[in-house]
Amino acid sequence: MLNAVDQALVNDLTGAPSSLQRRALAKIITLLESTRMDHRKRADEVLNTLLPKTGKSFRLGISGVPGVGKSTLIETLGLYLIERGHRVAVLAIDPSSSLSGGSILGDKTRMERLSVLDKAFIRPSPSSCTLGGVAEKTREAMLVAEAAGFDIVIVETVGVGQSEIAVAGMTDMFLLLQLPNAGDDLQAIKKGVMEIADLIAINKVDIDPNAAMRAQLFITSSLRLLGFQGNPDHASHDREFWHPTVMTLSALEGNGVPELWEKILHFQKLQTANGQLQARRKQQSGAWMWDRIDVGLKNAFQNHPAVQTLLPVLSAEVNQGTMAASVAARRLLEAMGHEFF
Amino acid sequence: MLNAVDQALVNDLTGAPSSLQRRALAKIITLLESTRMDHRKRADEVLNTLLPKTGKSFRLGISGVPGVGKSTLIETLGLYLIERGHRVAVLAIDPSSSLSGGSILGDKTRMERLSVLDKAFIRPSPSSCTLGGVAEKTREAMLVAEAAGFDIVIVETVGVGQSEIAVAGMTDMFLLLQLPNAGDDLQAIKKGVMEIADLIAINKVDIDPNAAMRAQLFITSSLRLLGFQGNPDHASHDREFWHPTVMTLSALEGNGVPELWEKILHFQKLQTANGQLQARRKQQSGAWMWDRIDVGLKNAFQNHPAVQTLLPVLSAEVNQGTMAASVAARRLLEAMGHEFF
Repeated sequence: MLNAVDQALVNDLTGAPSSLQRRALAKIITLLESTRMDHRKRADEVLNTLLPKTGKSFRLGISGVPGVGKSTLIETLGLYLIERGHRVAVLAIDPSSSLSGGSILGDKTRMERLSVLDKAFIRPSPSSCTLGGVAEKTREAMLVAEAAGFDIVIVETVGVGQSEIAVAGMTDMFLLLQLPNAGDDLQAIKKGVMEIADLIAINKVDIDPNAAMRAQLFITSSLRLLGFQGNPDHASHDREFWHPTVMTLSALEGNGVPELWEKILHFQKLQTANGQLQARRKQQSGAWMWDRIDVGLKNAFQNHPAVQTLLPVLSAEVNQGTMAASVAARRLLEAMGHEFF
Repeated sequence: MLNAVDQALVNDLTGAPSSLQRRALAKIITLLESTRMDHRKRADEVLNTLLPKTGKSFRLGISGVPGVGKSTLIETLGLYLIERGHRVAVLAIDPSSSLSGGSILGDKTRMERLSVLDKAFIRPSPSSCTLGGVAEKTREAMLVAEAAGFDIVIVETVGVGQSEIAVAGMTDMFLLLQLPNAGDDLQAIKKGVMEIADLIAINKVDIDPNAAMRAQLFITSSLRLLGFQGNPDHASHDREFWHPTVMTLSALEGNGVPELWEKILHFQKLQTANGQLQARRKQQSGAWMWDRIDVGLKNAFQNHPAVQTLLPVLSAEVNQGTMAASVAARRLLEAMGHEFF
């Protein structure tokens, strides 16, 4: 049951675009981000009420190392989409936000032209003590933005493997923005990001077109060697599937941005028709539930009084080599009242 | 407290090398691998009794894709070491063993000459429903082999990212065996295995020396680009640290095997002197304890009666999009009696 205040927020949020809606959007996200237990319970009720109004946007994840031009691309693409009648929400997952207080998107001047438009909503990364916490709150904020009628949600993150996997795990399409150099390519392969990318765009083609083309060739052949290109024979089947592709663009000058949007639309059309988009969202919801359960179980363990007493003692024994780790784990779980091992 | 049977097994195991010792070794490992709760409790007591006698071996992890020549190398290296007075235990982690009943090392004919020697002990991969379970039992078997006085323990696994990380997480040194081709290199980078390798050996140099040399150059430059080579300036510091290196060898003909052993000894000497080996073992014990706690918590969750009733209902709601995943997770944890979220 919603209280009267929250019901009013929900009404404002799901009404017509207005300053009231914008205020409700910001307030509900603040409620979601609160660490107070009573706020969290209210946020859960709000989320459940909004749920039927969510899911109607296209969710685009964008990642790349610092300096690759993510903000520039998001601003250029965002302006391009708003011109075409879309409403664009930009969220961020900054894995370092708990330390820095939010280094990406903390400063709206990074997207000066986009941030002043009514049809854009830009929210900096929540700060939280864990990446899981940051990702959770961003995922929920995405649902709230959808309920407010934003039909394109962009989730930005920086090039740290775990945060990129979190973003790929909450979006319909994952775009990896790359610099035209081989070290960057190998890093992306190493972090396992290349294999979760639906589209790879090499930025700064305006600065060095030859380097960008070399990078495009290298990444294309890497994708093939790694087996991410799929079987070309699939094209002859009844249903067509999307295969990751590599393109070049200039976020600063806008070259390639219309082509990028065309590719995104093609992806959306294909993956909707073949059922992959729906399947991916279902899989993501399930995985999200299990993530939360894992975190909750670990919290319950660490907050349990018997565990808090025993843990330092047994950890020290394991550390000194006087108790096998498996024995210590069993004793701790038994202290919590669990007999399952 | 050990019962009389287990005490006798422990006495046999920690006595002089003999057929009785070999029998005790096999029996204790079988006890560890049992899924019966009473066996598991006995196994814990045995492990704790043996603990002071463990830790005196060098633990070498070996991995590589099927066909790379792991068994051939282990046989060649094992025979070489036994000739020099060592006792060699070979264990395996086969991530597919739960399905296949053990495809690697299940058949001792793969190491025909090594398996007949008294100074060698070869144990196939345990079968278990999870990789975590397989890894756990192998880790414990390693301790039992050490208590029996085997001074070299080799843990073999196949080229699947998760099992390789498990092996690297229980050994002192991780050796990655590679085929001389670029697809293999990229795969290793992609799986994150290149970054956990202390030594990379390119096998089959006898077949195509040029290809092996090309692979050596490529991997060396990749390690540098990925930043795994460390800072050359470190050499000028007081304590020397090991940096991953790349070599070529022929497991079949034995070329490079003495050099491999020299590198391993150099690694052991350096990492013992600078404290890294001891630090790694402590870190591994701690991580092992937390792994077991995670598994135990998840088991406790899934075996809880209230969860068993609610889980299918709430999962279906999340799947149909009528309940937010975070709300479902909270309800399940509350049903279990946990209020922490």
